[in-house]
Amino acid sequence: MKQLSRFGLAAGAALTAIACSKSTPQPNIVFFLVDDMGWTDTQVAYGEGVYPHNLRHDTPNMQRLAEQSVLLSNAYACPVSTPTRVSILSGMNAAHMGITNWTATMRDNPSDATGGAKAMMSSKSEDTGNSLTRPDWNWNGMSPQPGIANTQYATPMPQLLKDAGYFTIHVGKAHWASAGTPGASPYNMGFVVNVSGNVAGMPTSYFSEDHFGNTPEKWNYLSVQNMTEYYDTGTHLTEALTREAIKTLDYPIAQNKPFYLYMAHHATHTPIQGDPRYTQKYLDRGMDEGQAKYAALVEGVDKSLGDIMDYLEKRGVADNTIIIFMTDNGGNSENKQKGGELHTQNLPLREGKGSCYEGGIRVPLMFKWKGHITPGTKVNTPVTCEDLFPTILSMAGVTNWKVEQPVDGKDLCKLLTDGSKYVADAKAKGEISSEADAYHFEVPESVSNVDPNRTIIFHYPHQWKPYSLDDIDFLSIIRKGDWKLVYRMIDSKLELYNLKEDIGEKNDVSGLHPEIVKALAEELGLKLKNWNASMPIQRSTGKPVALPNEL
Amino acid sequence: MKQLSRFGLAAGAALTAIACSKSTPQPNIVFFLVDDMGWTDTQVAYGEGVYPHNLRHDTPNMQRLAEQSVLLSNAYACPVSTPTRVSILSGMNAAHMGITNWTATMRDNPSDATGGAKAMMSSKSEDTGNSLTRPDWNWNGMSPQPGIANTQYATPMPQLLKDAGYFTIHVGKAHWASAGTPGASPYNMGFVVNVSGNVAGMPTSYFSEDHFGNTPEKWNYLSVQNMTEYYDTGTHLTEALTREAIKTLDYPIAQNKPFYLYMAHHATHTPIQGDPRYTQKYLDRGMDEGQAKYAALVEGVDKSLGDIMDYLEKRGVADNTIIIFMTDNGGNSENKQKGGELHTQNLPLREGKGSCYEGGIRVPLMFKWKGHITPGTKVNTPVTCEDLFPTILSMAGVTNWKVEQPVDGKDLCKLLTDGSKYVADAKAKGEISSEADAYHFEVPESVSNVDPNRTIIFHYPHQWKPYSLDDIDFLSIIRKGDWKLVYRMIDSKLELYNLKEDIGEKNDVSGLHPEIVKALAEELGLKLKNWNASMPIQRSTGKPVALPNEL
Repeated sequence: MKQLSRFGLAAGAALTAIACSKSTPQPNIVFFLVDDMGWTDTQVAYGEGVYPHNLRHDTPNMQRLAEQSVLLSNAYACPVSTPTRVSILSGMNAAHMGITNWTATMRDNPSDATGGAKAMMSSKSEDTGNSLTRPDWNWNGMSPQPGIANTQYATPMPQLLKDAGYFTIHVGKAHWASAGTPGASPYNMGFVVNVSGNVAGMPTSYFSEDHFGNTPEKWNYLSVQNMTEYYDTGTHLTEALTREAIKTLDYPIAQNKPFYLYMAHHATHTPIQGDPRYTQKYLDRGMDEGQAKYAALVEGVDKSLGDIMDYLEKRGVADNTIIIFMTDNGGNSENKQKGGELHTQNLPLREGKGSCYEGGIRVPLMFKWKGHITPGTKVNTPVTCEDLFPTILSMAGVTNWKVEQPVDGKDLCKLLTDGSKYVADAKAKGEISSEADAYHFEVPESVSNVDPNRTIIFHYPHQWKPYSLDDIDFLSIIRKGDWKLVYRMIDSKLELYNLKEDIGEKNDVSGLHPEIVKALAEELGLKLKNWNASMPIQRSTGKPVALPNEL
Repeated sequence: MKQLSRFGLAAGAALTAIACSKSTPQPNIVFFLVDDMGWTDTQVAYGEGVYPHNLRHDTPNMQRLAEQSVLLSNAYACPVSTPTRVSILSGMNAAHMGITNWTATMRDNPSDATGGAKAMMSSKSEDTGNSLTRPDWNWNGMSPQPGIANTQYATPMPQLLKDAGYFTIHVGKAHWASAGTPGASPYNMGFVVNVSGNVAGMPTSYFSEDHFGNTPEKWNYLSVQNMTEYYDTGTHLTEALTREAIKTLDYPIAQNKPFYLYMAHHATHTPIQGDPRYTQKYLDRGMDEGQAKYAALVEGVDKSLGDIMDYLEKRGVADNTIIIFMTDNGGNSENKQKGGELHTQNLPLREGKGSCYEGGIRVPLMFKWKGHITPGTKVNTPVTCEDLFPTILSMAGVTNWKVEQPVDGKDLCKLLTDGSKYVADAKAKGEISSEADAYHFEVPESVSNVDPNRTIIFHYPHQWKPYSLDDIDFLSIIRKGDWKLVYRMIDSKLELYNLKEDIGEKNDVSGLHPEIVKALAEELGLKLKNWNASMPIQRSTGKPVALPNEL
């Protein structure tokens, strides 16, 4: 129970917020969360131009949504699944929660170091021989009830929405906690309806012919539950979850109740089993088999988004429905199933899932909010996953909420509304004349309520796979403005990148700017200390590694 | 697709009904359905007195509910699970639907003759050497969509409730259809919320230590889904489902929406794994281990009922909540896990689950409906599972419903309200002075809208187990008033019992009343013919057995 020592009197404190813009009636919200899809895996260009990687996959519905949305070009999530997902639910930074890695299906099984399906099942963590080993952390995930070992106790955001009258729906992947703890079930996290969400972080199979993993040959703890109607029907899991989501919307729409649909797809996580309807055309374009299958997984998600948008339009609720599109971390660049060459999948970004380099944490994020945001705009203020908590509550008009946890995230409402208008005005005035201009155009805090030079922190005191990965394991980062400090804990090294000039993080300029390194190391170290963040343990001494400001 | 030939123009016909008594606001309804619990497995005495078997299990909450309810002392369900459950959903007689046996988990697997867990998994049916073999029937169950092979297409009752504004909740066992068909999912059957219901007709395990069957050693298609939060917590499945049900009630109560909770427990079905909290006291009373475990399964269900009643009271909605308590068929008297002596478990009734003798089809049924029924009364008009469909709609004030199927069931509303008052008045006037009097006291049709001499039909053209059971396999029955005709299809024999004098069906009086035999055989035969009921096939000729009136 780390939170006791961590928060002391702060736990239970009441926090309040004020909605930035009241919608009447209460807006519906669809949070469309994709798994493991990278920043450039979509035709929607979040960067300063269209990168070659943006052209790989057909995503017409993501483009359709983008035309109605404000895009956040510097949006971040944690490098792996659970921390992002619980940050959204709690509003806390992952390091602050002590939930910095994914949760195993079975409780009391830290997922460090062993990795892969074995740890997801039930094995204990193993050491793999390097100089650092795992810290104590909240490996059982988040809990809506106090007193559960190795969990972060927090009031989940859907509970606040439900208390405010929202019909809250969970479809797909939950992955907030391990079995045998309350966080395992969306029904304990404030959801009125749950379709299939539980402790699984990936599906055993996307195919109905495999019963999504429910066969005597394939079954494991990741097999997808509550999907028996689709067995042997040729329905891909992404399609099946979409149909389930649409069904759940019938009651709140008919009853004229506001709804919050958390549509959390398993796609595009491994296993790379794309919807066969979309594979051939990618093979015809010259992709290898892995690439084509991954492309089909992405396009399946795009079809899902379009189907939900169509349904909202058909039922006449599209205009009053906010759609948030996001992915939970960067694209996986360390898996051979995806074809191509490893560590190239997120170009121009460096690395991918698991890593605190941009490829692992920079994610697509856009908001459709008709009448409130200016569509077709791009805002480049850095934002991060814990911001979703206060932002969603604010958009929903839920004020004066009280929660058990300290909330680290920032309400982005004014950034989305006034910020997007500010960008549009600048375009109209000719201050922005190119995509590159837009990408570097700054929305001041006086307009957006969010400091463009705010700090963003990610912390991964773990080894991801059963083998060492220099650019993934044991990294801690702070971004502030254009600068990003990378603390490589395994060799006590600090790197500095200027993201404005070097989005690919190719040139470590720490030697040129020692004062910036020092200031950022100080700020990161202070945060980690205040949050009582878990630090990797040095095998030789049994002690935690130094904070970055103590080097 | 049997229904096409069966109904022709009748399919799609609009049927209407008028509610007998309008409640304002709309009443909530809890349908508490227990599995495989026999007529005398409870301290609530439905018969003409307290039988020794009524004293075996402690069921204080069933008694508490009975004191607030009207009891139906001649209530019937089908001899096995699925037919009862789909009759409740469709309002059709099982023989009319062609769903006369339980549905296997995997589609296109008739459950006939092989029986047991093997058929529930995926095996094809096998012949076991007797003179009859299985007919064609709708072995894939009920479907809310047309065009699915070997299903009965019907509009499910919860859909009509949902359309009328009800928040409809499914918790526990569904078992209406096989995997790969729409009926597999409660979300297709008009339910807004589903907790764990699917194609499984029993749980692999009731124990959280077994993960309810979700372990590499134990997993099969019956393993209980969506229960990961309880793994290894020592929570019995009955307790876990109860807690889930209570959670789902929060939203409709908070939103002041009427709800329909279909609380369908897996208990007391095999495996006989009682809640360990209750086992010891039954051992101390001298029961053998199987009996004590079964008693603990029953008492677990009783505790669940009490918890739900307590919760409704705590939330202030008890008075406007109808509670229907029922079991889906008679107690199992053909399973050694239950201890004791086989074929005695339902005394004084003959036989048990699977059989059309009273032990297999006579079930507990009571209605709590404050302000409408007279509590503590007993009404003996024969009623049956398909009556629940129009009755529930009527109690909910849902009128002018349109469905795709012909509805065979009868609205019992006036029987419950005016009938229970009529009984209470007779008691007050001294016309009823003993339990035996009450058991035989007739409520006339002019009062109840239900003919006390109406016919009740059950039809089981199947072999239940991989071995022959004379008193279970291939039976078809009609009850009219005190008379019951049993057609033993395997040896073309007709038996006649007078249930008023002989509830144990010990004395076949067919030789004494040939004219009654003839009339009932005629009526049964006509119904089966009109319904195009499936008849067992004679192995020697390949033709169906004769109808009872053709003998």
